[in-house]
Amino acid sequence: MQTRYFTISDYPQGTPARELFELHAQELPALADGEVRIRNSWLSVDPYMRGRMSGVTTYIAPFALDAPLEGAAIGEVIDSRDPNLSVGTKVRHMAGWRDIAQLPADEVEPLPSHDVPEQAYLGVLGMPGMTAWTGLNHIAEMKEGDNVLVSGAAGAVGSLAVQLAKAKGGTVVGIAGTTEKLEWLKSHGIKAVSYRDKDAAQLTEALNNACPEGFDVYYENVGGDCLEAALNTLKVGARIAVCGLIARYNENEPSPGPSNMAMILIRRARMQGFIVFDHWANYPQFLDEVGPQVARGEIDYTETVEQGLERTPDAFLALFEGANTGKMLVQL
Amino acid sequence: MQTRYFTISDYPQGTPARELFELHAQELPALADGEVRIRNSWLSVDPYMRGRMSGVTTYIAPFALDAPLEGAAIGEVIDSRDPNLSVGTKVRHMAGWRDIAQLPADEVEPLPSHDVPEQAYLGVLGMPGMTAWTGLNHIAEMKEGDNVLVSGAAGAVGSLAVQLAKAKGGTVVGIAGTTEKLEWLKSHGIKAVSYRDKDAAQLTEALNNACPEGFDVYYENVGGDCLEAALNTLKVGARIAVCGLIARYNENEPSPGPSNMAMILIRRARMQGFIVFDHWANYPQFLDEVGPQVARGEIDYTETVEQGLERTPDAFLALFEGANTGKMLVQL
Repeated sequence: MQTRYFTISDYPQGTPARELFELHAQELPALADGEVRIRNSWLSVDPYMRGRMSGVTTYIAPFALDAPLEGAAIGEVIDSRDPNLSVGTKVRHMAGWRDIAQLPADEVEPLPSHDVPEQAYLGVLGMPGMTAWTGLNHIAEMKEGDNVLVSGAAGAVGSLAVQLAKAKGGTVVGIAGTTEKLEWLKSHGIKAVSYRDKDAAQLTEALNNACPEGFDVYYENVGGDCLEAALNTLKVGARIAVCGLIARYNENEPSPGPSNMAMILIRRARMQGFIVFDHWANYPQFLDEVGPQVARGEIDYTETVEQGLERTPDAFLALFEGANTGKMLVQL
Repeated sequence: MQTRYFTISDYPQGTPARELFELHAQELPALADGEVRIRNSWLSVDPYMRGRMSGVTTYIAPFALDAPLEGAAIGEVIDSRDPNLSVGTKVRHMAGWRDIAQLPADEVEPLPSHDVPEQAYLGVLGMPGMTAWTGLNHIAEMKEGDNVLVSGAAGAVGSLAVQLAKAKGGTVVGIAGTTEKLEWLKSHGIKAVSYRDKDAAQLTEALNNACPEGFDVYYENVGGDCLEAALNTLKVGARIAVCGLIARYNENEPSPGPSNMAMILIRRARMQGFIVFDHWANYPQFLDEVGPQVARGEIDYTETVEQGLERTPDAFLALFEGANTGKMLVQL
């Protein structure tokens, strides 16, 4: 049986070119004892993958060149030499960017049993959802009634962060770019602010208008002018959860940071970076709490879906253009 | 009886000119019931006072124009209409920048009774010492054996921070400017790194050489290139206590912040600004812990002393040139 998969043959400088990604096909070896073979149905593409293309270890090892790329995926076991994973089991694993995966059964987990579409475990009930929940609750220590600002607010992580924050009762403001995203935010009772055509001072003014009393929590996915503007609008004792800084991921040269770092001091604010994998022990708690809400339809997990393995690099690159509302997925 | 005091008649832009500070003399009114009159012996000048000259409320109200400036001072009660404060009592209060102070007794506190020179209560056992102790213990949550980096390491706050950190056993590195300060650091077993003639990349390299395994804690007094270099040298899970950013206090225009904010994310670091006054409830605990160490001579509280009320503005302005090793004081 053949597997088709994407590789990169070099580490890109700046925004990766589409040509960087090469599609290969290869005959799979016979299943070894303890291995399973999976037909992937959904692939995840995520901004953090850009960091794995930089050739240096940040908080995760870089992708190996000329080897199949990796990422979260959902599929069905089609062959098994492990007694615990029978054919037909729906599973999640990290052997994405390919159609057929073959790997040790202990690197594969059966999907939980909430009444949700299977791809939800790549988004709202997967890593992005867990990231939103962890950042708000464990890093920013959000309390009932806190005013919360979220950048990248209509993305995979941000779209859940705004809804979880909104459920706790304070004013929630989301920063996003496209009209579609701003409308999506408004339709969920979130005050929507566009960063387009605004410098940091203008964005500050827009945030002040949206929430004159200031923010207790800032959930940071973007960096750049969003961070500078957010620092200007913090309340005393505010907490910033730094989840991502996508504005800078494709830059070759360092860009200046916020010119108002003194706000950290003046507002006695706390800024903390986090990686969701450090907090994965809390995943069952997250699933118990948020899973039923998703199953009951109380959380809108919007998705942007590309069709077909061949489109995986396009889906990935579109993340950096802000093309996705909610979770970006590839359906096979 | 006359009091002589300094005022400012305008809020300065950039580095304050010496001429900004005007010395006045005025006859004091008769003591009101509940008031005391104090002959000041020591005046404190501190970097935070620059913020009170900006005309805007940051975390503390600005100085009133054409009124006596304020700041910590030590003196002796020379007249009293309060039953709890008798003539001859040594006290600390905030009516500095003057020779004779007259104020309500409830704004005056008798000095604690440790066997130390009285001016220690303006420095090592006063606000700067309390600031060092609070930042290390309560903000950065320093643990035994942590590697600690301190900027402004030979200043009033930094010089205690390095000694408190050193006592907990890890590698302690201090950043300072002058040869005198670097020598002072070395004489206390602190690895000393000069920021002079180094950009952020060169300072990073010097810090890496001083402590190749990186820092668990960064105690920030300076900002600018010190912050950028420090961010490059953090260990995973590092904590940054932001006490001050003196590099920027005299700037009119915002300067770019660190270009490597992503290190907050990559190292899952926490950066927190604090104001010691928010933590003043812990002052008795600080005094119980550090007072006896100072009395036994275990902590070197170096001082830079100017003589005479007339020199108070000069002492203050010298802070921004890094002219002081340890606490800057004016002796009357």
